[in-house]
Amino acid sequence: MTDKGEISARIAALQAEIATLEKQLGPQVSPLVPKAGFPALPVIDGVRYAAVAAGVKYKGRLDVMLAEVCEGASMAGVFTTSKTRSAPVLACEDSLSKIANTKGKYAILVNSGNSNAFTGNAGWEAVNATRAAVGAALGIDAGNVFPASTGVIGQPLPYDRITAKIDELVSLLDAAGGEGAARAIMTTDTFPKGATATVQLGNSTVKIAGFAKGSGMIAPDMATMLVYIFTDAAIDQPVLQAVLSRLNTRTFNAITVDSDTSTSDCLVMAATGRAKMDRITDLADPRVSAFEAALGDVMRDLAHQVVRDGEGATKFVEINVTGAESAADADKVARAIADSPLVKTAIAGEDPNWGRIVMAIGKSGAAAERDLITIRFGDILVAEKGWVAPSYTEADGAAVMKQDEITINVNLGLGAGDATIWTCDLTHRYITINADYRS
Amino acid sequence: MTDKGEISARIAALQAEIATLEKQLGPQVSPLVPKAGFPALPVIDGVRYAAVAAGVKYKGRLDVMLAEVCEGASMAGVFTTSKTRSAPVLACEDSLSKIANTKGKYAILVNSGNSNAFTGNAGWEAVNATRAAVGAALGIDAGNVFPASTGVIGQPLPYDRITAKIDELVSLLDAAGGEGAARAIMTTDTFPKGATATVQLGNSTVKIAGFAKGSGMIAPDMATMLVYIFTDAAIDQPVLQAVLSRLNTRTFNAITVDSDTSTSDCLVMAATGRAKMDRITDLADPRVSAFEAALGDVMRDLAHQVVRDGEGATKFVEINVTGAESAADADKVARAIADSPLVKTAIAGEDPNWGRIVMAIGKSGAAAERDLITIRFGDILVAEKGWVAPSYTEADGAAVMKQDEITINVNLGLGAGDATIWTCDLTHRYITINADYRS
Repeated sequence: MTDKGEISARIAALQAEIATLEKQLGPQVSPLVPKAGFPALPVIDGVRYAAVAAGVKYKGRLDVMLAEVCEGASMAGVFTTSKTRSAPVLACEDSLSKIANTKGKYAILVNSGNSNAFTGNAGWEAVNATRAAVGAALGIDAGNVFPASTGVIGQPLPYDRITAKIDELVSLLDAAGGEGAARAIMTTDTFPKGATATVQLGNSTVKIAGFAKGSGMIAPDMATMLVYIFTDAAIDQPVLQAVLSRLNTRTFNAITVDSDTSTSDCLVMAATGRAKMDRITDLADPRVSAFEAALGDVMRDLAHQVVRDGEGATKFVEINVTGAESAADADKVARAIADSPLVKTAIAGEDPNWGRIVMAIGKSGAAAERDLITIRFGDILVAEKGWVAPSYTEADGAAVMKQDEITINVNLGLGAGDATIWTCDLTHRYITINADYRS
Repeated sequence: MTDKGEISARIAALQAEIATLEKQLGPQVSPLVPKAGFPALPVIDGVRYAAVAAGVKYKGRLDVMLAEVCEGASMAGVFTTSKTRSAPVLACEDSLSKIANTKGKYAILVNSGNSNAFTGNAGWEAVNATRAAVGAALGIDAGNVFPASTGVIGQPLPYDRITAKIDELVSLLDAAGGEGAARAIMTTDTFPKGATATVQLGNSTVKIAGFAKGSGMIAPDMATMLVYIFTDAAIDQPVLQAVLSRLNTRTFNAITVDSDTSTSDCLVMAATGRAKMDRITDLADPRVSAFEAALGDVMRDLAHQVVRDGEGATKFVEINVTGAESAADADKVARAIADSPLVKTAIAGEDPNWGRIVMAIGKSGAAAERDLITIRFGDILVAEKGWVAPSYTEADGAAVMKQDEITINVNLGLGAGDATIWTCDLTHRYITINADYRS
């Protein structure tokens, strides 16, 4: 073929064929899925889970989960700061403010398929009705029910399909039901995401189990991250909240798939207090650091799994920035690199295009001096002193880019501020998922 | 085919075939190219242009341009704020600071194919050598030569190929050479970009001619925008600079293709003073507003052409935000919408996905109250009072999305701040251009 019109027509035909085949294929499990699969979640004394297929939007798959947390538990949470956050998120924030520094019995109710966001007063009606139903069934105050919804925006939640299933959910509650719950909250995630840890606190072995959903998005309108973590640790609510909040900054708040923030992001944690241990009542308790390290591992693991299931992702990328004037500046630079479409497409193309990293540093708004910047791909020195390093070869850079997991290290040479951000690449599949899904 | 492995293999084969065909096809002119084509640039008394093929990187095409501006001209400019900006940009800034409030004879020297950015001391060597050569050939100070370079980052500029052509360039200088100059500064632009205006200032008809490059990028590493505007107006340098700077905010600084800021963006304007008119020496001169309106038209036209040639663009999108608490807040919201990969891919898919606009408003960081937000596609009311408008139909939204040019209007209902940003969609072609170009 030499005629440009013919070639263009042929390209269009091939693209149409690919679209048809991709529809036939359906969602594919991410190539970055953890090789170990979904972990065996340990039983957390005081926590039971259930999941049902309620047909909120998806047919024939689990789409509503209920978790029950025993009397005497501490509850903590972190939520999206979006100005258009959903009614369920506002409800969780409200509940948390009222139960600060108290212990109680709680429930978590989550549906997938509909985010109940930007749904006006109908949003509150759905939240109130479902919380009331769970509260009545479990004998707790409706305000002790933490709701969440994930899926399409702006459509009324058919909440009667959920309330009709509450009795069944309660009858199914089971301490071993974690994996079903993790599956029920998936939207277009390509794999369920779980993580566990145990930690020795004095004479007691404390268990932590968590699961998350996020970053797959074919039919729904919004990537939403939901995370639920449970532990049997005996720990007061303010301490739990403080630890959770500060860990969140360096785990879930340190990932980005496409720079777009959901209306519904939500992390909720329950500590049942059933472990045989003296209660942690103070952030200065020496056991906090061990607990925080173990919880941090679980949160980081889940956060990484969300990136590994990023839409269209084929590369898992860690970006470390050191030597910034401040931690805030390091964060700006790391995010500018992680969110740059040009950096992300270069990684997708396995192209060691370090010039685009220079560009991203330059545009970030952080203090930077060209001649003090050092850039490394893994251990390989790429650029320093305002230019490419004499020792760098394109072949070395290309070899790093062929790997599934890539580390980019930037030192700004100015101060002690550092930050790490995890992200994925930007591929044709991302465009297919988000541009073509109505076709 | 029903086997998933077979389907995946077939998809991969089709994608490879498309990549081969696209290489065969070469760069295609953007579907959003202005129908009128490149305008006939009027002669600006006191300005001459020349362009040659120097083989800096591209072979057999114009890649270096020289513009000469007569004695007595006022020179103004606006440059990227990137912290990793190139040596030519730093040189222009330095020159401009030294000639503020003076008149002189100037030159502009631009090459495409190599950005001379992040090239250490070699960058300055190239700038100094090329400026000295032009200065000697035209009998002006080297500091009166405004250089620019656009193309790949981090590779030394083979400046001897440019200095070897200076005599030829000088011999070719021609008042009618504007279109050649506009072509010589293109990198992977798919069409040259020009705009003109005339404006009556008292008894004198003043002419304005400008050209720009930007936003095509297949082989180079960086989208760079370069803009040159010439007028015969007699206007003092500080007045010209003030008008140019404030217009820049609402024209070139109000466009985004992919949120990535170049190391080399550069807007330079020369006013020769050859028009028969009393000199404008004060920003309060009543003729400034007519001049500013005409110059603004030229700048807006060129800025729109850069968006129309955005990588892979198939839609030209105007985003108007009104009712914000401040102009800064309006700008934040408009940019959050314009830079959102989810909004941009929805537009590419002709999907009236207004939920993603709600998301972008929410994440922007600007003050917003869900129930006060109004969203319109063109004139069509889409959402208000915290929910979809009762009158809105998906068919109405879909009809708007099928157009080549789309307007999104958001009113935040809070104050008097407004902003307009122009952008394009995010398509498969953007990924192909930026991820696959080394293959």
